[in-house]
Amino acid sequence: MSESRAVVLLSGGLDSATALAWAIRRQGWLCHSVAFDYGQRHRIELEAAERVAESLGVVDHRTIRVDLGSIGHSALTTDMPVPKDEAGREGIPVTYVPARNLIFLSLATAVAETVAATKLVIGANVVDYSGYPDCRQTFLDAFIRAANLGTRAGSEGQELEIAAPLIRLNKSAIIALGLELGLDYVLTRSCYDPRPDGMPCGHCDSCHYRRQGFRELGREDPLPYPDAHA
Amino acid sequence: MSESRAVVLLSGGLDSATALAWAIRRQGWLCHSVAFDYGQRHRIELEAAERVAESLGVVDHRTIRVDLGSIGHSALTTDMPVPKDEAGREGIPVTYVPARNLIFLSLATAVAETVAATKLVIGANVVDYSGYPDCRQTFLDAFIRAANLGTRAGSEGQELEIAAPLIRLNKSAIIALGLELGLDYVLTRSCYDPRPDGMPCGHCDSCHYRRQGFRELGREDPLPYPDAHA
Repeated sequence: MSESRAVVLLSGGLDSATALAWAIRRQGWLCHSVAFDYGQRHRIELEAAERVAESLGVVDHRTIRVDLGSIGHSALTTDMPVPKDEAGREGIPVTYVPARNLIFLSLATAVAETVAATKLVIGANVVDYSGYPDCRQTFLDAFIRAANLGTRAGSEGQELEIAAPLIRLNKSAIIALGLELGLDYVLTRSCYDPRPDGMPCGHCDSCHYRRQGFRELGREDPLPYPDAHA
Repeated sequence: MSESRAVVLLSGGLDSATALAWAIRRQGWLCHSVAFDYGQRHRIELEAAERVAESLGVVDHRTIRVDLGSIGHSALTTDMPVPKDEAGREGIPVTYVPARNLIFLSLATAVAETVAATKLVIGANVVDYSGYPDCRQTFLDAFIRAANLGTRAGSEGQELEIAAPLIRLNKSAIIALGLELGLDYVLTRSCYDPRPDGMPCGHCDSCHYRRQGFRELGREDPLPYPDAHA
């Protein structure tokens, strides 16, 4: 087991929780998890992030506030409607938040510098969300180059590396990995537009891909959906 | 005059105000200015940014809150003492905020995407602050490459460019440029550790370089210093 230290982006959703489980249980890294309170309408994910972080045993977990709501232009941070039952259409979805991963990775880079971490871990994957430009490996590679040039740590030779362990996995493969690592998916929240009781809507893109992933795997999603027998 | 649209990082300090004056009055760009409320102890600069933005005639000015205080590790965001009368020593100063320009440029990229700007403008310069890794052209070039790969605008062919008009100017040359463009430096605030009345301490690195710049130019800094005749 290596004693590497990592900063892990943890939204509280299925992907980032699996990436954290991979970093801790497969890689043996000491992990500092970071969630972002960015004005998202699905703030319930912040509590999910705390639960996941605690259950997997991070060194510490922090929630950083960054006001992306004032930048606007996404269905996730404004009162634009979240699309329902439209997963799989072409192009960049309206749930795209401008430069979100660029911003989150930049903040994670600052955390990495202060805790002397040499790894950034992100649950980005290109299979289901190919419409998000900031989930592609070419972006991640370009980002980490900029991050190393723009920080004290990087410019003094303590290079930061980026790990995106899910980048080529589809949703069912991600779930299979998490189950193998003993991750309890009941702790996670993926829905973009949760019901007042915090439970998933079942119909946004994020619910769609999650449910399809469990279905393909022949496993039961432990979360209750309003139309569980649909 | 071009009708290009730009997002300009505006801290309220001397450099960024000069960069904004250059973008509006020299380049003729339509400018959206952005300041950051990041937990800095010298918050007075946020009011300076508003004054400068108004006086130069931006399209709009916004202040984005991002909680770098929770990341810590800088004399600008914690209760570490701000060094006095130590300008010019070797290495990266304790006033370095981890990944600050990386974070600010990422947020500015998000704004650029929402207002369809094709330029980012930053008042970075390497002459006095060679200790800050995130003020170097190599970093800025790497950043903009990542930003274009990680955004909808960039990936759909609307490339963002970065302009750092002050990067090779020393402080007196920056001030000369601003005066030539009619910028009133009484509106700006540079001090890292202002007095309770908002006026500069006169002794932090930022005051040192500002005062030296005016002195070299044979001009009077319009701000009052506690030891104006020292």
